[in-house]
Amino acid sequence: MFKLKAKIIDIETGGMPVISINETFANRNDFHGMDRVLVSFKDKSLVAAVDTSEKILSEDEIGIFEDVWKKLGIKNGDEIEITPIGKPESTKYIRKKMDREELFDKEIRAIVKDIVDEKLTDVEMAAFVSASYMEGLSMSETVSLTKSIVETGGRLKLKKKIIADKHSIGGVPGNRVTMVLVPIIASLGITIPKTSSRAITSPSGTADTMEVLANVSFSTDELAKIVNKTGGCIAWGGAINLAAADDKLIRIRHPLSLDPEGLMLASVMAKKVAVGSNHVIFDLPIGEEAKLQSIGEARHLEREFKKLAENFKMKVETLVTDGNNPIGNGIGPNLEARDVLWLLKNDRRGPLDLRRKSTLLAGKLLELVGFAKEGEGQKIADKQVDNGKAYKKFMEIIEAQGGNPKVKPEDLHVGEFTCSYEAEKYGKISNISNHALAKIARAAGSPVDKEAGIYLFKHYGEPVKSGEKIFTVYSKSERRIERAIKLMRELNPISIE
Amino acid sequence: MFKLKAKIIDIETGGMPVISINETFANRNDFHGMDRVLVSFKDKSLVAAVDTSEKILSEDEIGIFEDVWKKLGIKNGDEIEITPIGKPESTKYIRKKMDREELFDKEIRAIVKDIVDEKLTDVEMAAFVSASYMEGLSMSETVSLTKSIVETGGRLKLKKKIIADKHSIGGVPGNRVTMVLVPIIASLGITIPKTSSRAITSPSGTADTMEVLANVSFSTDELAKIVNKTGGCIAWGGAINLAAADDKLIRIRHPLSLDPEGLMLASVMAKKVAVGSNHVIFDLPIGEEAKLQSIGEARHLEREFKKLAENFKMKVETLVTDGNNPIGNGIGPNLEARDVLWLLKNDRRGPLDLRRKSTLLAGKLLELVGFAKEGEGQKIADKQVDNGKAYKKFMEIIEAQGGNPKVKPEDLHVGEFTCSYEAEKYGKISNISNHALAKIARAAGSPVDKEAGIYLFKHYGEPVKSGEKIFTVYSKSERRIERAIKLMRELNPISIE
Repeated sequence: MFKLKAKIIDIETGGMPVISINETFANRNDFHGMDRVLVSFKDKSLVAAVDTSEKILSEDEIGIFEDVWKKLGIKNGDEIEITPIGKPESTKYIRKKMDREELFDKEIRAIVKDIVDEKLTDVEMAAFVSASYMEGLSMSETVSLTKSIVETGGRLKLKKKIIADKHSIGGVPGNRVTMVLVPIIASLGITIPKTSSRAITSPSGTADTMEVLANVSFSTDELAKIVNKTGGCIAWGGAINLAAADDKLIRIRHPLSLDPEGLMLASVMAKKVAVGSNHVIFDLPIGEEAKLQSIGEARHLEREFKKLAENFKMKVETLVTDGNNPIGNGIGPNLEARDVLWLLKNDRRGPLDLRRKSTLLAGKLLELVGFAKEGEGQKIADKQVDNGKAYKKFMEIIEAQGGNPKVKPEDLHVGEFTCSYEAEKYGKISNISNHALAKIARAAGSPVDKEAGIYLFKHYGEPVKSGEKIFTVYSKSERRIERAIKLMRELNPISIE
Repeated sequence: MFKLKAKIIDIETGGMPVISINETFANRNDFHGMDRVLVSFKDKSLVAAVDTSEKILSEDEIGIFEDVWKKLGIKNGDEIEITPIGKPESTKYIRKKMDREELFDKEIRAIVKDIVDEKLTDVEMAAFVSASYMEGLSMSETVSLTKSIVETGGRLKLKKKIIADKHSIGGVPGNRVTMVLVPIIASLGITIPKTSSRAITSPSGTADTMEVLANVSFSTDELAKIVNKTGGCIAWGGAINLAAADDKLIRIRHPLSLDPEGLMLASVMAKKVAVGSNHVIFDLPIGEEAKLQSIGEARHLEREFKKLAENFKMKVETLVTDGNNPIGNGIGPNLEARDVLWLLKNDRRGPLDLRRKSTLLAGKLLELVGFAKEGEGQKIADKQVDNGKAYKKFMEIIEAQGGNPKVKPEDLHVGEFTCSYEAEKYGKISNISNHALAKIARAAGSPVDKEAGIYLFKHYGEPVKSGEKIFTVYSKSERRIERAIKLMRELNPISIE
């Protein structure tokens, strides 16, 4: 145990708490960078990692970053005690995984708990992610991981026997199936507490688009109320922290561009288990620029999801869809929300491809929960759109989520700065690059600027004349539209043959 | 490209440079934690990693840490440009290694170069270390790694045909063979530019002990002068930065407790190649608490060192030794240096086990360089100690390294605070724990406190009477001797049967 004088540093470090000590003091007392110490002040203490890179500290000083001084109530000059402590048990299990041994349930739980409690350093988490990627996780490890993500995250408790849900593996712009499917399902009296994500690298996530029409951030209690009232919701999963462990791991996975399958499976499944879903339809889009690139990959994932689901008494159906092209016409929050409203209002501007995909998935889900016979689900789903019941339900959900149920598609403005992409020659559209459209829409301001994005006038396979408009980009900012134009020229988003 | 206002933060971050930006600004513009940006100010620029954990920055501000503002000459309020840039190619190669593919020479070189240039984040380096550990490095990868560590580190250029060297895999306290062996070899006219490390977890490294008698930090030019004059040196390798890449990797390996064999082989070999050594004897101590725990491990390492050495036209001999017990009586800088002086002066207090091991290894080295016939090396080495020539050479080296050639063993003081460990019963010493002695000596202050450490009166296998002194601990500080006493009681360093 060592006593040192606090030197307040007005910096937050994020992740595991860090304290700084003088390098000579560290050498003299056997501290190394990233070692752990118990930092105590008065009756409070926490575990922090040691940093020795700071040169301004004298041997009797300790640099206390904001994350630490706020928690312990430390002021400049306070006497702080630090005691070296060993690494948590979980680091042994990470090492065991690196040694290619399968981890027991309690070992996975220990790792996940320490991740959530911020007791592991980035380097240790990177080792765990790397080992999970290189060695893979067994089904039993994936089950344990799913369970521990659920246990350390938020949960939604609904008193319903059947709880339906839907998940898309993603990577397809404008794919707002959820916002059509949820009202269809809920309009038939089936509970569907859907949580969605925000965009990370896409122009808009379902949560970003829904936010145009209603609030999406709720506590679990608020969400339960909404679902109990309307039968459904379209909320941001991040707000109820369904998979805290997963969020921490993403910080590490992103810079490594690593998406170990076991972690992905557990992350998806945990979010479903956390809201109590027991009938889930999975959309697996395949495309050159989608997450899944071949039918083989999709079939493999299908099997894994089904095996994993068995462990949670969850019925699962999967549908392999075409992920080569955008679904719908709008890309970006307002543009997508407008598409959805038009579609549900049976306006002729509602995009047909989005309707077809949404009722197909909704139909399959109706079959899965036993509401429809095999092969008859989509008809029922289509009827709910045609007769306006899905629209009505959507307005109920919007109102329950604090939005305006009288919202009109025309209320959703698009940015005043625009530019259009025109066909360079006569022919047929032979490719639309999802990646390119996503980058252009983001450059235009999507999803932060709700009015920014892209509207597609033509789709894959359609004939075009030279000079004909294929899409228009919208932005609220002149500087941004210029950036989008530059990208539009560089990226070659459309091919014509 | 974005323009932001500098906010100076008086903190060094160490490792890859880091800049902080506002989280909303980051989201809006597609920056994620650990993304890379080119930070430009006036005509200077550098690559830094993005951090978004800092909450005090407004959207138009950029937090500039000391590592960055010093290099670019930035002041508060300066307008800074940041441009997102992709990851370096080397991250692809790290990923390739994680995908279990063998890396080409140019790929390993790219990784090592980026490590030295601080272009990789801790998380990326952790992935590389993890992959190297889990997948192992092939011999051809290890050769490339060795070459690139040499190319990116300091080098010593001596105009000699035969350059001898010695390396011990370590883990044995008090094992000061180098300080006896170097003078023996050099006294016979054979060049031996020995570089050694400082203690990391041991009570004293050779460089720490030599520092008691002379300087150990030299530039390559200074070192070349010393070796050209005396034929040998005992210097600190860290000062001439022989393996900069390796030092950076150790920062990552230490907290993971990972010692991937390929990295270790390359690190050891690179330091030998960097000083031009072409005849090297390796000491491989085996012991329960040494790095090598079985003859199988030692034999394996022997083969790997020999294969690797072939690629550098280096002749290698290995000697498996007993690593179960401390070698010599003193543990800690002054105590070890005193042992060495006594030994070379042929004082009866010179430890016999250290002499035996030193002349054995020196003899093998003499045979390896062709100076002695097989089986006759040790005799020659012993003669050099007996006739005082090794002592004379040692004094020459000490003088050349700026030390006092008239130093006497009695000049090397030991700490005034002492305590002794006494035999609890009559019997034979059946075990001496290297780990326990190392911890006790470090608690007493070793190696920072040169006068701290342990002196062993009895060795493994020797008979003891109840109450007889087995070792004494020395320290300059009362507080530290108390800590050492506490550990002495807890750790059970000696077993008697």
